[in-house]
Parts: sequence; C-alpha cells; structure tokens
Amino acid sequence: MGSVKALFEPETVLLVGSSTLKEKVGLVSPQLFRNVIHNMRKFFKGKTFIMDVNGKVGVKDLEKLPETPELAVVMLPSQDSLHYVEKCAAFGVKAFILISGGFNDDQRRQLLRMKETYDVRILGPNTVMGVINTANGLNTTFERDLMPKRGNIAVISQSGGVGACILDWACFYGVGLSKVAFVGDKVDVDDTDLIQYLGEDEETRVICLYMEGLKEGRSFIEETRRVVKKKPIIALKGGITQESAHRAKSHTASMAGSDEVFNAAFKKAGIIRVGDVEELMNAALALSKQPPMMGDNVAIVSNVGGPAILAADAVVRNGLKLARLSEKTRVEIERAYPGVDPVNPLDLIADARAERFQKVLDLVLADENVDGVLVINMLKSCFFEPEDAKVIPKVAANHPKKPIVDVPAGGEDFKLVYEVIGESPIPLYNLPEKGVQALKALRHYGKILNALHMG
Amino acid sequence: MGSVKALFEPETVLLVGSSTLKEKVGLVSPQLFRNVIHNMRKFFKGKTFIMDVNGKVGVKDLEKLPETPELAVVMLPSQDSLHYVEKCAAFGVKAFILISGGFNDDQRRQLLRMKETYDVRILGPNTVMGVINTANGLNTTFERDLMPKRGNIAVISQSGGVGACILDWACFYGVGLSKVAFVGDKVDVDDTDLIQYLGEDEETRVICLYMEGLKEGRSFIEETRRVVKKKPIIALKGGITQESAHRAKSHTASMAGSDEVFNAAFKKAGIIRVGDVEELMNAALALSKQPPMMGDNVAIVSNVGGPAILAADAVVRNGLKLARLSEKTRVEIERAYPGVDPVNPLDLIADARAERFQKVLDLVLADENVDGVLVINMLKSCFFEPEDAKVIPKVAANHPKKPIVDVPAGGEDFKLVYEVIGESPIPLYNLPEKGVQALKALRHYGKILNALHMG
Repeated sequence: MGSVKALFEPETVLLVGSSTLKEKVGLVSPQLFRNVIHNMRKFFKGKTFIMDVNGKVGVKDLEKLPETPELAVVMLPSQDSLHYVEKCAAFGVKAFILISGGFNDDQRRQLLRMKETYDVRILGPNTVMGVINTANGLNTTFERDLMPKRGNIAVISQSGGVGACILDWACFYGVGLSKVAFVGDKVDVDDTDLIQYLGEDEETRVICLYMEGLKEGRSFIEETRRVVKKKPIIALKGGITQESAHRAKSHTASMAGSDEVFNAAFKKAGIIRVGDVEELMNAALALSKQPPMMGDNVAIVSNVGGPAILAADAVVRNGLKLARLSEKTRVEIERAYPGVDPVNPLDLIADARAERFQKVLDLVLADENVDGVLVINMLKSCFFEPEDAKVIPKVAANHPKKPIVDVPAGGEDFKLVYEVIGESPIPLYNLPEKGVQALKALRHYGKILNALHMG
Repeated sequence: MGSVKALFEPETVLLVGSSTLKEKVGLVSPQLFRNVIHNMRKFFKGKTFIMDVNGKVGVKDLEKLPETPELAVVMLPSQDSLHYVEKCAAFGVKAFILISGGFNDDQRRQLLRMKETYDVRILGPNTVMGVINTANGLNTTFERDLMPKRGNIAVISQSGGVGACILDWACFYGVGLSKVAFVGDKVDVDDTDLIQYLGEDEETRVICLYMEGLKEGRSFIEETRRVVKKKPIIALKGGITQESAHRAKSHTASMAGSDEVFNAAFKKAGIIRVGDVEELMNAALALSKQPPMMGDNVAIVSNVGGPAILAADAVVRNGLKLARLSEKTRVEIERAYPGVDPVNPLDLIADARAERFQKVLDLVLADENVDGVLVINMLKSCFFEPEDAKVIPKVAANHPKKPIVDVPAGGEDFKLVYEVIGESPIPLYNLPEKGVQALKALRHYGKILNALHMG
C-alpha cells in the first residue's frame, strides 16, 4: 500500500529513457522521452530527475543524483527496462512505472522476482501513458501539454488507447479528474491495489475502470465491496466476444473470461457496468455530482414535447418508471399555468422561461412520488435563454437528496447552457437518452447501497 | 404534388403575423414574427412580402401586393389563422405553413374544408419551425440566423423540439442538410407526401424521419418502398411506451399505435429504424457519404488496441461479423510490418503513421473476405498526426464499392482530424461504438436493397 501511494504521490521522480534509442515498431523513441520530460517539468510540483542511459540529458549514473527518487518511470525496450529497474531498485527506488510493452513471459517473471527481492511495486509493463495526478501535477504521459482539469473522478485503464480516449474526452468536455492510471499488463500492481488506494483517496469520489481481464477475482470482489460503500465504481469491460477476447489476450496478456462470469463478478462486487466509453463518462459525471437515486420514479420537466417523449421512452426502456405526480403537485401546476397539462412528462410549452421552470421544478422535487428529475431546456424552437438555466442548480440546492440532471439538447444549445451552469453540481447532457442513462446509473448506485446495507 | 413543391420551392412568400399580438402561453408573439421576417430577409433568394394583420409592418390588404404569393406562412392564434388562410386561399395562394398550435378538432376540420375548396396544401398546424430549404434559402424558423450548411440529408420532424435538436446538432457539427420540414399536426400534408417529394428531390440523398404517429399506413408503406430503391429512409419513432404515447397524443394529436405495429410497418416499408437522435444523425451521415454494405464482414484497422477491442465487441453485438482476413492479406501485412499481428481487429501499433495505414487499408479493402472497414486513428497515446488522416479518403477512392468509416476517438482528437478530412466522403465518429453503428446502418440498407430487388 505504501509504495502504491508512491506511484501517485512521490516527492521525487526519476525519468529513465534514451535520447537516441528508437524501436522499429513500438513506443520507445527520443520523441516520447522528450515529451514525458516536457510534461513532468511543466506540471509536476515535486522534483524531477532525468537519466539518459546512452545520451547526454541528465545523469548517467544513479550515484550522481542528489537524493534517492521515490518513483522511477522507465521508457526503454524490455531488456533494458529490466536492467534499469534492478539498478534503481537496488539503489532504493520504491515504485516503478514501465511505459513500453513487448515483455515476454520470462521477462515478466524477472520483474516479479525483483518486486519480491527489493520489496518494490511495479505498474505495467506496457502502461503506455503511466500515471496522472491532477493534485500534484504528476504526469508521465507523452502527449505534450495534455493535462485534465482537477476533479473527483479517477480512471484506471488497462488499455493505453481507451485511457487516452477517456482522457481526451475529459479534457475536451472539461470533466475534472483526480487520478488516472494506465495499468497495462498488470504483472504486479493490479485493479485491486489501485481500488484500495483510490478508496482512501480524498480527492476521488468516483472510480472508473476499463478492464480486459482480471486475475485475482476473489480479492477484487472483496475490495470493491468495501470501497463502494463509500464511493461508486463504474466498469467498462473490453473483449466480451470470442473474437475480441483473442485480441485482448495478445494486447494486454489478459485471460478475458466469459462475459457472464464478469457480469456475475461485477454484480457481486457492487460495480456499475456500462456499455461504452461515453456511457462511462456520463455515468461518472452524474455520480460525481449528484446523490444516488433511492427509488425508480422519474419526473421529466421540459419546454419541448418531442424530446420529452423520447426521454419518457428511454425511462421505461432503462427499467425506470415515469413518476405519477401527486394530486397536490398537479393542482398547483394547473393553478399557476393554465395552459400546461399537469401530466408527467411535463411539457411547459416553448415559451417557458426561468420563472416557470423554477416554480414547477420546486413542486416536482418536493413531490414524494418523485425520486429523480430530468430537465430538458432547449433554446432552439423555444424562448429559453442560457441565463435562465441558473434556476436549476438554485432549486436543486433546496432538495439535496433527489438527483437532477439537465438536458439542453443538441449541439450549440448544450454549449451555451454549459457555459452558464457547466461548473455547477448539475450534470449536463446533450440528448434526452443520455440524461436518462445518467439517472439509471444514479439509481443503480442507490440499489447497490441498499443491498450492501441489507447484506 | 405541385403544391407540396410550393412549400419548399416558392418564388414568392407571404409572412402573415402580428407585431402586437402575444399569446399568454404559446408561440404567437411579435418577437417570433420579427425573427421569421429577419431570417427570410437574410436567407431567402425569392421575394418575401409581409402582412402585419393589426400593426404597421408590410401590407394589411392582400390587394396591395404586387403579385400573388405562392406560399403563405401564418403565425397567428388558431382562429385568426383560419381567417387568414381562407382569405389568402381565395386570393390565389397555393400552399400554407401554419406555425402555431392550439387548434381544436372543429378548427382542424375547417382547415381540411379549405384545402378541398381552394385546392391548396397545408403544412401543420403546430409546425413551430415550418420549413428550411438550404438551396434557395427558404427559412421560416424563428431562431435568428440559424441556417444549416447545404448538404444532401433531408429531415422530416413531427416535433418542433426534436426537429430543432437535429437542426442544432447539424449546425454545430457541420452536417449538411438539403430540406427540413416540421410537420406538426399533419391535418393535410403528411410524411407520405413529403417522402414522395423528397424522393424526387435531386438535392436529397438520405431522408430522416422523426414521427410520433401515422394515419394512412398503407400509402406510407407503398410510397417508401418506391423511394428507398433510390435513397435510404431512416426513422426515429417517439412514444413507444404507453406513458409517452399518451403525451404524444396531446402533443401532436397522434394516435401512436403499438410499437410492434410500427416495427412491422417500418420493416415492410424498407425503413432503417434507429433508437435516438444521435444514432439518426450518425446513420444519416454514413448513408449520405458511403455505399451500402453488401455483406456482414467488418475489418477493423487501428493504431490502438483497447478501442479496437471495443469496436470488435460492438461489431458482434450489432449482428455484424469480424472478417477473417485472407491468407494473401495476412502474409503481405506480416511481410511489410513484422511487429504487427495480422489478425482482425488489426492493431498497427501506436507508432503507425500515414504510410502504414495506407498500405494496410489498401490490402484490407481489396480483400474479398471484407465487406466494410472501420478505421481507428487516435492521436493521443499515438504518433499519428492529423494530416496523416488524408490517406484514408485517398485509399477509399480506389475501393468505391466498400464502405469505410473513421474513428478518431475522444474529443479533441476527433476535432483535429475533422478539420483535415471532415469534408471528405469519409464519415467521422468520436467513439468506436458509433462507427460500428454507422456500418450497421450501411449494412441494413444493403439488406433492404437486396430484399427489394428480390421481391
């Protein structure tokens, strides 16, 4: 546990690479080495040392370092990596991140032996991008200047590509992350170790997992069941079909296991399983901002009819229910707005502005028949202005136990509303169906919490 | 048919509204009237006349117009609308678009009587946004300055909100449209009329439908079966659950019908059914740019492992197959790139650039075991540069009968590649699963064409 912490919170880091070596097909190259150095110098708040094994940058000899680094990031071909891991471990380095892949079984066994001999922890090999910690600026990725916003969503990805896709997504849409770990081949540090660490991490409120395979199923389930009492875990599993499982095996040396086995394991572990990267990020956003949903009943409050109907379809398709509004709520809506039919999904009509939304949302959130609310506030074809959206977090603050998500549907409409309330505790989605998926994830977590407290 | 054409291709248009009237709950307002005038003056290449029924803008008397307008756009409360439709019809106007809603059954009947008496065609009432034709600049929407790019995708939406959402999406993501029709309550002009018109429209290559209900099922099926031989039709149906069907009824006076009935009708009609707005636009984009897919076998060519695995999962989940590459293809890939495992999904490794993609894509597209190709070219975690993407349309041009879609996954990666090849015939998607959905739509159209030519 101590050294897993060193993977994310080292005071001192040594970057081990070469300014001359280039693999014919593979990641090792002077460019990658340069870029990691660039990112670490730009973002990392601790000390960064550099060791260029056959070139001119930094030191060539560990003895010349002013102090012993806690963490070493190794960007060399497999055989060279082994050599320098052993040297650094003997010198006192506690944790390693191995960027490049191409390790054979024997080399993997050698890595494990070093871990035992020197009592160190190793992330990888084949992590491709290593680790990001937005709190201390640790950033071992080779994507120049890439740094997500600080936030409370942690990501563990077995695949460099999927992790990079999530990272690119988060940066582009301004979703805040706490930690990112690319785990690669998992010879030592695995999902269980990382979930244990992130479970204690105060910066992290939600944990996202992309995995292709899993070795120690039992300890994984035990650990996640402990952690999900405090924070939700969402998983995307790659390699669910026979064909792609074959690829997963050669990709990250994973035994994929049958999809049913994983489904059962995720269920037992209290993990929310999702179907693709977008659903993963959308669910994470909702869970990082909103409380779990403690019943099935969704109210839809919209200024357009058609998208509200699509949302209602999605509610039922996702196993949730359309809330039946109480008599009191219906009467009060009818009294205030005679043109509005007080039936869920509520169509507030295209001329609804902030005041109508505020009043109706307040009534609906207070209704005991309602467990969660989906708001749709389009600008196009409506009189709603982006500034009007400010009433949504305002009303929501009076009802902290019921989740609420907002859908300014489309493209530009989403962007305009995002500029006004994107930083608020209200998660935003660009289509009704995605907002409903987010509520489904919040409901799923509510059910998991209920089951854990009963069991 | 003649007058349906006048809804989209009039030489002269009369805008009938009021610069003083404002409905308490509803669309009629001086602001809406002003905005439609603004858009028509800004975009429409024909003549626009204005009739302000109780104010000072334009004429108050039809006799004062220099010529008889072909089309009148009426933006008045229901009773006033009836009055002016009759006046204009008697004066010789051939086609009407009714923007506002709130018509009761008796008023609808009166509209139908006028249609018969004067032999005119009526779109609406309750069309909210009316019509857009990007070729002649006709734009009766009240969203100031909103105009999609000229393109070959036509949209027919029963809902103002869903139509506006599609429109906003298309504008934001630069997807080109030919015609947009908001059909509202469909007392006269319905989906069948519009599909007939768009089937003949040379600007239109794909037709998108959002519908909540349908009256004349048989003629609809007959007409679509005729049209889909020339161009694909994609439909999104709202109100598929009992609860939302109730809302659809009050929303656009639709009898929704059971979901199974629609499924059967769409199948018989040769329509590609989709589940949400995004899938609708993604399928339309693919069908507007790529040929139908004439077999089930997909090859995946990627520079990252994990996203390729997710794509492979999606291929199988969507009822397609992972192509088994021919011996010849495998041998040639192995010979050219010894580090690459020549198995589908193909992982070209993170350092693949234009040259490696070009060579492998050419081999794969020429392989008789491959019916369509999904390319994944991420920038993050890879050495691929946006400019490298230019080889994709280049290679594709040599294999015009096989569809190809591209996935620069994530957020910024997508944008950067879009800037380079977004205008090319290669459709782009930001996630592997969406690219696979696009191929599924192309395969679906291939099957429809086969069935129609057999039957």
